[in-house]
Amino acid sequence: MGDVTLDDDRLLPAEPTVRALARELYHQVRELPLICPHGHVDPGLLARDEPFPDPAELLVIPDHYVHRMLHSAGVSHADLGLPDVDGVRRETDSRRIWRILCEHWHRFRGTPSRLWLEAELAEVFGVTTRLSAVTADDVYDELQDRLAQPEFRPRALFARFNIEVLATTDEATDQLTAHRALQEERWDGRVIPTFRPDQVLDPDQPRFRESLTRLAEITGEDTASYPGYLAALRQRRDYFRQLGATATDHGHPSAYTAELATSDAEKLFRRIVEGPTEPGDAELFRGHMLMQMAAMSVDDGLVMQLHPGSVRNHDPALLAGYGPDKGADIPGPTNYVTDLKPLLNRFGNHPGFTVVVFTLDESTYSRELAPLAGYYPAMQLGPAWWFYDSPHGMRRYRELVTETAGFYNTAGFNDDTRAFPSIPVRHDVARRIDCGYLARLVAEHQLSLDEAHQTAHDLAYGRAKEVYKL
Amino acid sequence: MGDVTLDDDRLLPAEPTVRALARELYHQVRELPLICPHGHVDPGLLARDEPFPDPAELLVIPDHYVHRMLHSAGVSHADLGLPDVDGVRRETDSRRIWRILCEHWHRFRGTPSRLWLEAELAEVFGVTTRLSAVTADDVYDELQDRLAQPEFRPRALFARFNIEVLATTDEATDQLTAHRALQEERWDGRVIPTFRPDQVLDPDQPRFRESLTRLAEITGEDTASYPGYLAALRQRRDYFRQLGATATDHGHPSAYTAELATSDAEKLFRRIVEGPTEPGDAELFRGHMLMQMAAMSVDDGLVMQLHPGSVRNHDPALLAGYGPDKGADIPGPTNYVTDLKPLLNRFGNHPGFTVVVFTLDESTYSRELAPLAGYYPAMQLGPAWWFYDSPHGMRRYRELVTETAGFYNTAGFNDDTRAFPSIPVRHDVARRIDCGYLARLVAEHQLSLDEAHQTAHDLAYGRAKEVYKL
Amino acid sequence: MGDVTLDDDRLLPAEPTVRALARELYHQVRELPLICPHGHVDPGLLARDEPFPDPAELLVIPDHYVHRMLHSAGVSHADLGLPDVDGVRRETDSRRIWRILCEHWHRFRGTPSRLWLEAELAEVFGVTTRLSAVTADDVYDELQDRLAQPEFRPRALFARFNIEVLATTDEATDQLTAHRALQEERWDGRVIPTFRPDQVLDPDQPRFRESLTRLAEITGEDTASYPGYLAALRQRRDYFRQLGATATDHGHPSAYTAELATSDAEKLFRRIVEGPTEPGDAELFRGHMLMQMAAMSVDDGLVMQLHPGSVRNHDPALLAGYGPDKGADIPGPTNYVTDLKPLLNRFGNHPGFTVVVFTLDESTYSRELAPLAGYYPAMQLGPAWWFYDSPHGMRRYRELVTETAGFYNTAGFNDDTRAFPSIPVRHDVARRIDCGYLARLVAEHQLSLDEAHQTAHDLAYGRAKEVYKL
Repeated sequence: MGDVTLDDDRLLPAEPTVRALARELYHQVRELPLICPHGHVDPGLLARDEPFPDPAELLVIPDHYVHRMLHSAGVSHADLGLPDVDGVRRETDSRRIWRILCEHWHRFRGTPSRLWLEAELAEVFGVTTRLSAVTADDVYDELQDRLAQPEFRPRALFARFNIEVLATTDEATDQLTAHRALQEERWDGRVIPTFRPDQVLDPDQPRFRESLTRLAEITGEDTASYPGYLAALRQRRDYFRQLGATATDHGHPSAYTAELATSDAEKLFRRIVEGPTEPGDAELFRGHMLMQMAAMSVDDGLVMQLHPGSVRNHDPALLAGYGPDKGADIPGPTNYVTDLKPLLNRFGNHPGFTVVVFTLDESTYSRELAPLAGYYPAMQLGPAWWFYDSPHGMRRYRELVTETAGFYNTAGFNDDTRAFPSIPVRHDVARRIDCGYLARLVAEHQLSLDEAHQTAHDLAYGRAKEVYKL
Repeated sequence: MGDVTLDDDRLLPAEPTVRALARELYHQVRELPLICPHGHVDPGLLARDEPFPDPAELLVIPDHYVHRMLHSAGVSHADLGLPDVDGVRRETDSRRIWRILCEHWHRFRGTPSRLWLEAELAEVFGVTTRLSAVTADDVYDELQDRLAQPEFRPRALFARFNIEVLATTDEATDQLTAHRALQEERWDGRVIPTFRPDQVLDPDQPRFRESLTRLAEITGEDTASYPGYLAALRQRRDYFRQLGATATDHGHPSAYTAELATSDAEKLFRRIVEGPTEPGDAELFRGHMLMQMAAMSVDDGLVMQLHPGSVRNHDPALLAGYGPDKGADIPGPTNYVTDLKPLLNRFGNHPGFTVVVFTLDESTYSRELAPLAGYYPAMQLGPAWWFYDSPHGMRRYRELVTETAGFYNTAGFNDDTRAFPSIPVRHDVARRIDCGYLARLVAEHQLSLDEAHQTAHDLAYGRAKEVYKL
Repeated sequence: MGDVTLDDDRLLPAEPTVRALARELYHQVRELPLICPHGHVDPGLLARDEPFPDPAELLVIPDHYVHRMLHSAGVSHADLGLPDVDGVRRETDSRRIWRILCEHWHRFRGTPSRLWLEAELAEVFGVTTRLSAVTADDVYDELQDRLAQPEFRPRALFARFNIEVLATTDEATDQLTAHRALQEERWDGRVIPTFRPDQVLDPDQPRFRESLTRLAEITGEDTASYPGYLAALRQRRDYFRQLGATATDHGHPSAYTAELATSDAEKLFRRIVEGPTEPGDAELFRGHMLMQMAAMSVDDGLVMQLHPGSVRNHDPALLAGYGPDKGADIPGPTNYVTDLKPLLNRFGNHPGFTVVVFTLDESTYSRELAPLAGYYPAMQLGPAWWFYDSPHGMRRYRELVTETAGFYNTAGFNDDTRAFPSIPVRHDVARRIDCGYLARLVAEHQLSLDEAHQTAHDLAYGRAKEVYKL
């Protein structure tokens, strides 16, 4: 029940020879700068540089990994202080919210949330008391004390974390005010936007129509016409690029892509915006627009990211009460071999094009994704994503992918987080696991130690920088 | 070729540090009482408490894991002494049947059947000679000798096994005579029924119509009318609960659930019982009735178990010759994310409801089941089932499930067996594997030893007791 | 950067106790003769027995594992010296092609291609310099020097490799000239054909019609009539058998099998050859013809092999430019439980019939294939195939298959290669991995050492020989 001592060898393989090799590899990469090419940090956090309010607002309320586990234990979202769809919070006492987390701490055993939170408390905030109902208040006070100090403000942490570049994720209609402010201020941290146009590409998004209208306002284009719509998208991509963006991101239900003749695309667009639509129109439109995005990427050099396969908002009661992205998105079976074929056939061999593909369906790693990434020069395989951003998840990723795609068709690590202070510990988990995997290859005499060192460096730093053009 | 020596460290990880930790964890849980919330032991065995007849009738004839492997080697079911559909046994010499098993013993290397049988012979019956064509007769004689002794009768074994509670599986129309007899006798073993209504919920079951008629006879309800049918089911659930049942069990081809308006349900029921049916009616009816079962569980508190995904009776020749459940059931791809959505949307957040979900499609562990169980408070993930009730199967289960669902959304161990004397060795395998998994987390510094001890205890004992309300 | 030293313990598990056991097992099987029941070596290579031309023609140009990885790095097929569909090679300087491989050598880290090539260079050719841009020319010269020596000609290597039997893969219309020449010459190496009739069974094959015509010419049968077509196939199977064939091989898009009445089959055949076809006809015909092939196997004893699940020619640009089998075949989801049901229901219990089933969809190992192979006596599970013919791929195969199907429903190892000099190193990888798996079972006390020795021998030698009737 005592203190948390973060063992320096944590997550390294237990067998002593392999561990020694892993430790040696890890010690060469642990201090490398962080390349963060994909994540969800609010850039306003860094623009404002205000203290984080309190432990619950920092570590519980915004973290859907935490909600979902507490909800599975029967804790209501109201008691966790989540604002409902009208913005009302039924519980506003952050200390009480914090206690709920601590009382249920055993439920996180074996999960990456536990790993991240424990390491974050110890390494970022210097808090090493183990969480429990008994220690909840003391830890709360200790954390409150830290958060009040200037060295725990966002920009101080950014510098301490040694972040070389941080990409955020931003809607197509976002004016990127915070990004502009940061650049105008000439702050020396590099924070860049990522073009995420789901709201204007996916007719099933609840805000699709309103987003098209907004897109017209911002760009001055007629987004009710297909050419105007495309021109508006191009304009926004240019704007994002001016503010440093190197990538787009697409979170679609499936990996479906489709090649439509322009006249068919115009008819489809008309049905989408004017109605009546036919069954399958939304999926066809998404598939067609991914092709258009790829074509624009060939022109403007933005790296394309594809995150398919999540059945969003599985629990309609949660959606109605608290909105999207609150922990009830569930992966489903995903096909890449036929769905990506049109896109890869048209652009997969194009030298200027890069598409980074992610999955929530691990059965596709060895069956479809590694074979595709190991053939098409344009395709890179994104790191283990979301539920698989975890020690076993990352091990399976390397074991299922490497033999067919090698290391150099994979895109390095993404922290993919909105929890800014957790960034270094997330990278640290990936570095440890990759070094453990490489150490095993060395111990089994598949790789020499000097090659493993070079590869560890590339996985921790070089791949992300190169693939995302950072 | 010598004796079998069951190493005390069997199934624990080979690496010495991890093994030492696993051993320490295991020694704290190995003697815990057995909670058996799901299995197929004939309660009459305990009601009658007669000696087991002979080694073949004990270990070969009733065990479909054994048949299937011997059949794959070309041994006929007739030669194994299985009664055919008319009840005729072509081979009645148990010693010859036993010899067949012994001659083919090498075919079981690496399988859980080998583990279970070897441990059962050694630990339950004290027989440590290794099986082979040469030793077959000696082992047969030795076993015969044991079976004749009073301490090897069912109730003596029940006590020696330290079984705290044993749930059987019983059709909705079963009168539970043996259960009643055991209770009236005031024997101190706790043996409870489980309500398994497949025969009256699934129109594709060959005995569906005859079972509905029988249901009417037993309950006095008009099971040709939809309200009468529902009332009859409710009445039977009450009867099972009076005899101690805490759970229902549903073995459907898929996990499909469906929400129908009462009028549509009545029309569907009419088509099912009177005809003519439409394509898809059987699946729709099963899906609808799972919703009804869940609704009744919310009322009466019975824990719902769902075992989907087996393509039953894959070999029609076997079905025609020897009937169902003889080893030719083959898993198929199973979907949970959309199929369970109606049920989880309606009841998944209900505080009084528990649904324990099993799978034969391991690709769903990390993709669908752990994410669902890690969100919905009502859902618990059942243990590694059937073909996966095995060392590697259990390891994969923990590795694929824990990082997303934790340990406390899993339901502990089920032995799921009709082979009564194998119960303790099956629990022992699970305890060893779980302790090995926990030991690895400790060795990799993801969990402290005291937490691992507590978790080991919960997985071996506490979870099953709590989830099944035992 | 120094020399490659092939550690004697390579690929054996790192943990010292397990490694010692694995080493002991491996040393008993490493020198066993090679049984090669399935591969793609050109028999003309052995008939002509000419020196291999140069390193690029030996190791780069014919190896689609190598192309695909280099192509994924942006290297064009033209620069690799591949002949285009008109037979034109844009790059004919083998030294330059070799340099491309060496410059990209880091991309193969962690892949079986790296393992095979490195071991082949060291163990077959005695070249231990590590490949790199710097060493490319030296290694090229060293290899050239070896290839000019008589002990590196095909027949000398055949003898040195200790190949007991080598099966090739040959189209139904192949006259097997090289096989006949080898037999007439009375050379003492055993090289046998395998009947691969895809070109005459699959209407979607581009050469289907021309192959039917050729089949008619060779056999004198009227292949435009269904009975004539079947008679022609039977005649060719007999011809293959006369030249030593013991097996057929079928590379279909799916595992679909179908039972058609003869009159329906005749109508279908008429539509296929005369048109117009209906949607689904090609798949139905393939499924029906697999049944016919199984029926003929029951008659003539040829072992049937089924290799389904590859989406061939995923990149139409590659197909148009360089033809099929150049590295752009991508696995897709494959169903066995329903697709194989007709075939297994009719022939799966037949004592004279053997069907060896392979997969590129690993999710089917534990879900469908092991349960099927662990029940039907006719079915054997082929080894880890293609992308899974790799250390992790083989480990997953044993871990996912053994607990349900045991070792004795698996068919031993296939090298499945057209790269003749890589044959011994491929078998060596399989022997090492299987011994590692068995060692772990011994270390975890699931198997005694004497049983593990026997099993290692069977997996390395006995199973392939027995299953393929060699």
